[in-house]
Amino acid sequence: MINKKIIIQVMGLLLVIEGVFLGISTLVSLIYKQYDTQALAITTLICIVFGGLLRVLTNKADKNIGKREGYIIVSLVWIVFSLFGALPFVLSGAISSYTDAFFETISGFTTTGASILNDIESIPYGLLFWRSLTQWLGGMGIIVLSIAILPIFGIGGMQLFVAEVPGPTPDKLHPRIKETAKRLWVIYVLFTCAEVILLKLGGMNWFDAINHSFTTMATGGYSTKQASIAHYDSPFIHYVITLFMFIAGTNFTLSYFALHFKFGKVFKNEEFRYYLGFVLVFTFVIAFALYHFNGIGLEQSFRDSAFQVVSIITTTGFATADYLQWTPFVIVMIFALMFFGGSAGSTGGSVKIIRITLLLKNSYQELKRIIHPNAIIPVRMNGKSVPAPIISNILAFVVIYMLITIVSTVLISALGYDLQSSLGAVAATLGNIGPGIGKVGPVENYAHFPDIGKWFLSFLMLVGRLELFTVLILFSSAFWRK
Amino acid sequence: MINKKIIIQVMGLLLVIEGVFLGISTLVSLIYKQYDTQALAITTLICIVFGGLLRVLTNKADKNIGKREGYIIVSLVWIVFSLFGALPFVLSGAISSYTDAFFETISGFTTTGASILNDIESIPYGLLFWRSLTQWLGGMGIIVLSIAILPIFGIGGMQLFVAEVPGPTPDKLHPRIKETAKRLWVIYVLFTCAEVILLKLGGMNWFDAINHSFTTMATGGYSTKQASIAHYDSPFIHYVITLFMFIAGTNFTLSYFALHFKFGKVFKNEEFRYYLGFVLVFTFVIAFALYHFNGIGLEQSFRDSAFQVVSIITTTGFATADYLQWTPFVIVMIFALMFFGGSAGSTGGSVKIIRITLLLKNSYQELKRIIHPNAIIPVRMNGKSVPAPIISNILAFVVIYMLITIVSTVLISALGYDLQSSLGAVAATLGNIGPGIGKVGPVENYAHFPDIGKWFLSFLMLVGRLELFTVLILFSSAFWRK
Repeated sequence: MINKKIIIQVMGLLLVIEGVFLGISTLVSLIYKQYDTQALAITTLICIVFGGLLRVLTNKADKNIGKREGYIIVSLVWIVFSLFGALPFVLSGAISSYTDAFFETISGFTTTGASILNDIESIPYGLLFWRSLTQWLGGMGIIVLSIAILPIFGIGGMQLFVAEVPGPTPDKLHPRIKETAKRLWVIYVLFTCAEVILLKLGGMNWFDAINHSFTTMATGGYSTKQASIAHYDSPFIHYVITLFMFIAGTNFTLSYFALHFKFGKVFKNEEFRYYLGFVLVFTFVIAFALYHFNGIGLEQSFRDSAFQVVSIITTTGFATADYLQWTPFVIVMIFALMFFGGSAGSTGGSVKIIRITLLLKNSYQELKRIIHPNAIIPVRMNGKSVPAPIISNILAFVVIYMLITIVSTVLISALGYDLQSSLGAVAATLGNIGPGIGKVGPVENYAHFPDIGKWFLSFLMLVGRLELFTVLILFSSAFWRK
Repeated sequence: MINKKIIIQVMGLLLVIEGVFLGISTLVSLIYKQYDTQALAITTLICIVFGGLLRVLTNKADKNIGKREGYIIVSLVWIVFSLFGALPFVLSGAISSYTDAFFETISGFTTTGASILNDIESIPYGLLFWRSLTQWLGGMGIIVLSIAILPIFGIGGMQLFVAEVPGPTPDKLHPRIKETAKRLWVIYVLFTCAEVILLKLGGMNWFDAINHSFTTMATGGYSTKQASIAHYDSPFIHYVITLFMFIAGTNFTLSYFALHFKFGKVFKNEEFRYYLGFVLVFTFVIAFALYHFNGIGLEQSFRDSAFQVVSIITTTGFATADYLQWTPFVIVMIFALMFFGGSAGSTGGSVKIIRITLLLKNSYQELKRIIHPNAIIPVRMNGKSVPAPIISNILAFVVIYMLITIVSTVLISALGYDLQSSLGAVAATLGNIGPGIGKVGPVENYAHFPDIGKWFLSFLMLVGRLELFTVLILFSSAFWRK
């Protein structure tokens, strides 16, 4: 039997927390005295009262949270947060359709950054703040989920670096999550503050600096400006954001080590080395192409390339240029990058570097296995051999990722979109990137999709954000049996 | 030490065989008295003399063919056959560039069907016959390779149905290959003859009927007409070719059973059931879309859809219509089909149904494995559980297939092609299909690629035709060590 009461209780608690952050957004809206205060205040009340009620009504619940309850809670929290978080947009009238508001909100919480807004700068400041905050909260959630919770579930090969987590040994679920979460959140907040200060120094006002720092650290990519980062004609700002996107795409346990001056541990980490390697190779190749084919100046070629490469590989989705105007070769490279993703244990989405790395290694080992069919040839990572079931799980992950991509592309094309746009929209939502290619390029948005398409893409964002299995498992009969 | 002499000896023997078939083409050219007879005759002589010389000079070779020699021979034979097979096109002047002639020939031998000819009907009959014959021979080669040779190498999960092969038990390599090959070739020839007769009855002349039968059974797709099968305004011809493409995409061991009236064995075979299922589902969905969105009549919608679905899934590449003119949804579905491929042990290329089926099953089992991490949950096929190393090999195959697709698409785009055309060209050559999407659609060809692109795409055809590993293994240091 699934312990429904504890699920409701946890959801109630989390809703109260959402209410608190909505309250903060209400306060922000008070500063700017626009039309959004009432809507934010009402939603704050709804969340706290309704959440509190759920908590109180389930007071006598059995406190036992098993694996199955865990799966349900993890999937449900993103949906419930988005269902309530969408309310202020609709109640204020800033977004007229609930579908659109839900899309915008789940795109926030999943740190995707796909928007339906045609005129971001017309949105009042309180709502803009809430919009950025959804990403920052989503990022916080995903760090804890990927480093502290999913490894316990055995999902997504995250077990690989579970021993490296700076926290107590995993004998008990609850204290471990709490302790790990605390340490990681401190880092998350520290980096956010550092970026705010640097962006302020670069010439942004406090409001924009805070908002962009929220969405950078979450690898979310929501901007307060219609033109995204291209709005700021400042190389300093571009470089600062590139740096912090890169940090946000790094495993936060490595950042923990770096902040404790254990740089050896960082550079010895194979995933980090591949991550850095991919970023450098793509940056230089694309910079060369921009300089050579598009006649862009040397410094700007490098800056635009580095920014876009880091923005896409970390699945942030900020833009300093419309990359669809670049030479086809660069567009194809950027499209390929959409399937890389950040490091495991970062806020980045998509397939993730650790899986790509293990895939490449395993492919090479498979050739050796064919040559020596009787030898046991393991894949090694960070000097240790990776157990076969984990390799098998990672291979299955990538194959399912591709299957979902192909099937979803077919479905989106049934709405009348061409191959490029369908593939772009699917890759950009499933990978939690935001802007894609075709009709969802960096200067376009998702407003033109029919409602059914928006709900479907919202579902893809959720599936991608939760490492596929967490959500898909709920659709298997094996999960609900017994 | 690699036994080089035996490799040279086998290549010599095979060159003599190629010479014999070139001789047949020379005889055909004599009937039509065009300018190609001399070129074909000279190449016949070159192959027989040079091949015979290689054979005689290595008379004292150690007859031992090990696995490593096997790999080298298998990869080399396709290359050498194409290097020599391209000569008549250049010597006659029908194709002016050797690169083009090589591309056209390896596209034949690999049963791809990607062409550089802008005016097929201007090519003399002897050369057209040779062009079709390269595909028919390539098909013959691939059947023996995939059913009798590769399973012994342990490549590509073909081991799966090795027990089902109608032939003596695999205690000795040589007699087994010979016996299996004989039985399968009889079937191959029988089906080819049956199709010739039916196409003649449908109104084709003997020459066209023979050529199209050659290229149907090989799932090659070379036509003697510039408009491909769209040239024939005969539903009967369309249906006949659809049927024989479907047969050519079926495991030839199943055809062997069918011809012995053991239909139970055919319909119990899981790969066949999925193959049939995919064909039916795609046919009906696309037929509906053509009827609904493109306003094509009911019978023609069904016929065009069935023809195109079977043509693409079996990687034949014939066309009765320019599918790029259809609604985007259908284009995307056809593009997705390019990654399916025929059955294992057929002449079809691409990923192949058995792998797709095992992938789908394994993905579902992976969900169960996450729910019950301590249970051993095997994937079952035809009622037997598939060993984990084979599943792992198949997953690696598909991942490598996708990696090659992505990397090659980036490389092709560096030649100035857009995403759709680059992806289309790569999918259509690696999958041995022929026509793709974008600038290599069914009414286009590959003439516009620069030489470097043609050589690269030729390489992809070879890699795809030989189940990736056979070729890739030659690039690994582990293969050459010791």
